[in-house]
This record gives sequence, structure tokens and C-alpha cells, in this order.
Amino acid sequence: MAGVKSIHHVAVVVEDIETSLNFWRDALGLEMTGRRDVPAEAAEIAFLEVGGSEIELVRPTSEESGLARYLAKRGPGMHHLCVEVEDILTLLEKMRDHNIRLINEEPRSGTDGRQYAFIHPESTGGVLVELYQLS
Amino acid sequence: MAGVKSIHHVAVVVEDIETSLNFWRDALGLEMTGRRDVPAEAAEIAFLEVGGSEIELVRPTSEESGLARYLAKRGPGMHHLCVEVEDILTLLEKMRDHNIRLINEEPRSGTDGRQYAFIHPESTGGVLVELYQLS
Repeated sequence: MAGVKSIHHVAVVVEDIETSLNFWRDALGLEMTGRRDVPAEAAEIAFLEVGGSEIELVRPTSEESGLARYLAKRGPGMHHLCVEVEDILTLLEKMRDHNIRLINEEPRSGTDGRQYAFIHPESTGGVLVELYQLS
Repeated sequence: MAGVKSIHHVAVVVEDIETSLNFWRDALGLEMTGRRDVPAEAAEIAFLEVGGSEIELVRPTSEESGLARYLAKRGPGMHHLCVEVEDILTLLEKMRDHNIRLINEEPRSGTDGRQYAFIHPESTGGVLVELYQLS
């Protein structure tokens, strides 16, 4: 069993983090666990905790990134859904068995050692899905 | 503390549930806990469990519904994010204090006794957010 453990995060692409925090942090009361520039993703990200999952508010810091183009084309809103998995390699194999269209055929490695791979929305019902293996 | 407990569900509007299940249930391995017509929402919904939250695959069964218009305009994908809260009345009050635009000024009641209210995407960074109090 390649096991999906939980929703790790829902990424929300926004034009302005401070305005969005007025809802997610101040009105809804979620705890902001971090806020930082992530140059590798050309974005500033605010992380909010909700029942063991995260809402990530993502603001593109370059106009060249895919995220910035998404924002310009579709407007702000939910961008992708990330699930934490136990065994990303086995799961990617299973994806191929079911003819799921992958964006990353092999896992990529983040700077913190985590592994991730994106699934194409065409195969999921329109959702950009990220698989995430923490260790 | 009006307390947000968790992500209750992420609703995904789809054109065809069976095709989407090929990813969410068969390839990803999520357990489908239910699948039924919900006439009140003019939709067929498949419920999949993931770490205490749900993915809801929602297929409009009428062309007249807001959901059907959303699908026609935006295509399939994530439609709204629902968080389970402890005290929806207090939370709605807090929303007004922070000038959050509400779709439902007062909680509405589902057939099962749950109470819910929607927040306008304009105030959240583009996300249609549902507050949900189970009891």
C-alpha cells in the first residue's frame, strides 16, 4: 500500500498576502506558522495551520513563473492540492498502471530532502495534484 | 475561540465521476465512503476519505445550477474549501468585524442538522470557503 496519509496543504495563489491574511488569520483565526520568500518557487508564501493540514497563500514574485501566468489568466484562488504519501515511487508506478498523466515522471527533490511529483489536472478532474513524501 | 477544527472537505466539480475515480480511488487509493445523488444540490457526489478530511467529486445533474454554470465557465477543478468550525455564529460575527464579504449572512441548515455558511471569494484570495458546524 503506497498510502496517502493526509491533505498536506492546499495552495492558494493570491495577489496580496496581507489582504488574504485578513480573512485566513485574523477573521478565521488560523495560526500563521511561517511567512517567507521562496526564491526557488519565485514566490512569497504564508503558511497557515488547520487541523494538521496547511493553507499556503502564495504570491508570485516574478512575472515569468507558471504561477504568475496562472494568476494572470485565472485570477486568484486554489492552485493545487498536495497529499502526503508514504511511498512516492510505488505510487507513481501505480499512476502509470492507471494511465494517469504525470507532470513529473520521477520524483523531484526539494532543498529540505522531501520528494514531490505533480499529476496533470487532465487525469484528476481538473485538479493539479502534488504528491509529497516527507521522509 | 470560535475554533476551526480541520479541513472538512475540498469539493471538486467534475464532468464525469467515473473518470475522476480512476485517479482518486483507483490510482491514488483513497477509500470511497459514499456516492449518491443529492437532489438539494442538483448534483451527484462521490465522497473519498483522506486523513480525516474528504475529497468530494461533484457532478452537476442540472444545467441550471450555479455549479453547472461554474463548470461551463471555468472547467473542472477545485470548487470550494470547507472547514469544520466549533461555533459558526460567533465566527460569522467575527467575519463581519473584519469586513469579510459573506454569501450567507446567517447559517443555513442542511437536512442532517448541520449548519453552514459560505464566504465570498472576494475576501479570501479567490477561494469560495464554506464554514460547517456539525453539531
